[in-house]
Amino acid sequence: MSSPIDTAKLEKLAEVAIKVGLQLQKGQDLVITSPVAALPLVRLLTKHAYIAGAGIVTTFYSDEECTLARYRHGSEESFDRAAGWLYEGMARAYENGAARLAVAGDNPMLLAAEDPAKVSRANRANSAAYKPALEKISNFDINWNIISYPNPSWARLVFPGLPEDEAVAKLADAIFAASRVDVADPVEAWRQHNANLAARSDWLNGQRFEALHFTGPGTDLRVGLADGHEWHGGATVAKNGVLCNPNIPTEEVFTTPHALKVSGHVSSTKPLSHQGSLIDEIQVRFEEGRIVEARAAKGEEVLKKVLDTDEGARRLGEVALVPHSSPISASGVLFYNTLFDENASCHIALGQCYSKCFVNGASLSPEEIRAQGGNSSLIHIDWMIGSGQIDIDGIHADGSRVPVMRKGEWA
Amino acid sequence: MSSPIDTAKLEKLAEVAIKVGLQLQKGQDLVITSPVAALPLVRLLTKHAYIAGAGIVTTFYSDEECTLARYRHGSEESFDRAAGWLYEGMARAYENGAARLAVAGDNPMLLAAEDPAKVSRANRANSAAYKPALEKISNFDINWNIISYPNPSWARLVFPGLPEDEAVAKLADAIFAASRVDVADPVEAWRQHNANLAARSDWLNGQRFEALHFTGPGTDLRVGLADGHEWHGGATVAKNGVLCNPNIPTEEVFTTPHALKVSGHVSSTKPLSHQGSLIDEIQVRFEEGRIVEARAAKGEEVLKKVLDTDEGARRLGEVALVPHSSPISASGVLFYNTLFDENASCHIALGQCYSKCFVNGASLSPEEIRAQGGNSSLIHIDWMIGSGQIDIDGIHADGSRVPVMRKGEWA
Ligand SMILES: [Zn+2]
Ligand SMILES: [Zn+2]
Ligand SMILES: [Zn+2]
Ligand SMILES: [Zn+2]
Repeated sequence: MSSPIDTAKLEKLAEVAIKVGLQLQKGQDLVITSPVAALPLVRLLTKHAYIAGAGIVTTFYSDEECTLARYRHGSEESFDRAAGWLYEGMARAYENGAARLAVAGDNPMLLAAEDPAKVSRANRANSAAYKPALEKISNFDINWNIISYPNPSWARLVFPGLPEDEAVAKLADAIFAASRVDVADPVEAWRQHNANLAARSDWLNGQRFEALHFTGPGTDLRVGLADGHEWHGGATVAKNGVLCNPNIPTEEVFTTPHALKVSGHVSSTKPLSHQGSLIDEIQVRFEEGRIVEARAAKGEEVLKKVLDTDEGARRLGEVALVPHSSPISASGVLFYNTLFDENASCHIALGQCYSKCFVNGASLSPEEIRAQGGNSSLIHIDWMIGSGQIDIDGIHADGSRVPVMRKGEWA
Repeated sequence: MSSPIDTAKLEKLAEVAIKVGLQLQKGQDLVITSPVAALPLVRLLTKHAYIAGAGIVTTFYSDEECTLARYRHGSEESFDRAAGWLYEGMARAYENGAARLAVAGDNPMLLAAEDPAKVSRANRANSAAYKPALEKISNFDINWNIISYPNPSWARLVFPGLPEDEAVAKLADAIFAASRVDVADPVEAWRQHNANLAARSDWLNGQRFEALHFTGPGTDLRVGLADGHEWHGGATVAKNGVLCNPNIPTEEVFTTPHALKVSGHVSSTKPLSHQGSLIDEIQVRFEEGRIVEARAAKGEEVLKKVLDTDEGARRLGEVALVPHSSPISASGVLFYNTLFDENASCHIALGQCYSKCFVNGASLSPEEIRAQGGNSSLIHIDWMIGSGQIDIDGIHADGSRVPVMRKGEWA
């Protein structure tokens, strides 16, 4: 049986992950996490990591059927347990300088039919055990990268009408296009793309807008920006000095809204896939940063539960700009995967802000971040508010306006 | 494509591993190591572990192609590195009470064509990193078990003339037969088998032989037994109180020879597969416990290198009795895998002895073990000296003789 996935492009994806995503350093160890279904990609990643001079490459695989076996057969008590030894070990690997590469690709709806109470207990136990390792990643102590592989289970969800092989081939092509590896020289394409994103961020940082004003069908939203906010996009210098591209694909430039200064109403423009549930046609109204009204044509109960997580869940932690012509938006595919879907469109995120989206963010205390308008929450959920009909103005402190986007494109 | 492996028997193997091999306890965590090719077995193991009330099951997979990628593309410096964080984590998991299940099945000749210097450096680095975890296993701090899966790469080696699917099916059947899961009630079959092995060990322990005398074609060997030696076979009570069957299959009863009291000559009866090399038709002569002459029709250089590892490599650390009619011997298959091949035949091992093969072995110091005749070495290499033509006598301190085996069967 030949694979429905183009091997040459898969190898380019592996090269881009190692050379652009991680810029893996000579002698640097690498920890990979991956679904076992993505083994063909892991083999190419391992090869290119060693070609790049890796120390030792260690992959930890997960398997959807083994995950389901736990929910189907596990004892009631087992759902509060996590493999602490593994996560502690990963944290130590990052402390010792290892880079981290995550291959995404599991079926986002895998647990949709399982007992939500068990799912949430298992998530809680895992999050607690994983926290020390995750903090080293999200704080950029090390260079890290996420890429995706077209698992058959994910492909069937994205293209439900097609035979599995065709679905996998189509999802593979969509991933390759979004990840910019369907060109002759992907490394050069990423250099240009990073330069473009950096130019956008630099312009926005130079403007120092007080707020952004989104208008479009069902949307009239003023998003105040946090004091000392900083725009980011594309490559990031990790604290170990390595320039890495954490997300592949990535199309956004993003910064921190002011948690107390968002007002007006906004409508979602694409469905949001959240932990196995679909939330669609969201409409919310903000007053002084807080969501005071929320509706959804589909999944409204799930949305309301999300908003009730904590006080910060009703406020914004991120605002991101993505042109409507981005390759992901152009593909018209709903990936049911935030890594892709958030890069299809301008978006906002409920919940936790990123400290790096402040000037000198790494040196600010949580109290300082809060004082500057940074939101805090257990959640961070992106949802799409961009389209070809959205206009965005930047508003200066003196009230003057600068066009930022018109009809979904950079103005 | 349907699998060439009988799914019902594979599930019985998984059940035997969990219920007999480990006797996994309610609430006990489980760490599995496995080749990724054995995923179908890991899924069944995970299911039966959770049915048995497992806490959390965590599997670490290896992959032959990723291993080879390291040898083909890794930098010179990388061969002294190991994933210390992973092995330390496993050691902590066992400290915290997790059971351990290893699935064997990789191609034993995988590294045969790679640079032996790199292989030995990588092995040394891995052994050093793995030592704390391995000690908890070999000291039976916890219940553990090894079973095997018919990886295609292994099956092609064992049955080189057959198409891959047929080779896998034949190796699968050989594994199922040797592991006693090709019967209606494998758990009951193992209860009986363990009772038989225990009866043999009890009889040998009651005899307290001073030596065993092996005679047969090319063999006239007197193996003095260590002072306070103890015979073992089949199930073992781990220090956590759980009765486990560490090796599946297992046919041997075994004890500790006296490192200074082996004399005469002995011929191997089956080829020995050692780290990718085949050593065949071994003939050695012992004087006062030490090998003073060694020849082999094939692989003599490898054998001599093994004997030069250290002083203990020329002396015996184990003697084991297996009837010629054991299912593995009856299969006539050379598995190139010690777990199987050592259970086809009576064997001796060069190198390190087992402390548990002494009365109260767990409480003896290394010095006490040495004083009682226990050998010590970096190696432990089993090789086969049994056949249908071997007679064995037990010799008491007063010189009286008791038949132990005649023509390869219990007397
Ligand atoms: Zn974003
Ligand atoms: Zn976000
Ligand atoms: Zn043995
Ligand atoms: Zn042995």
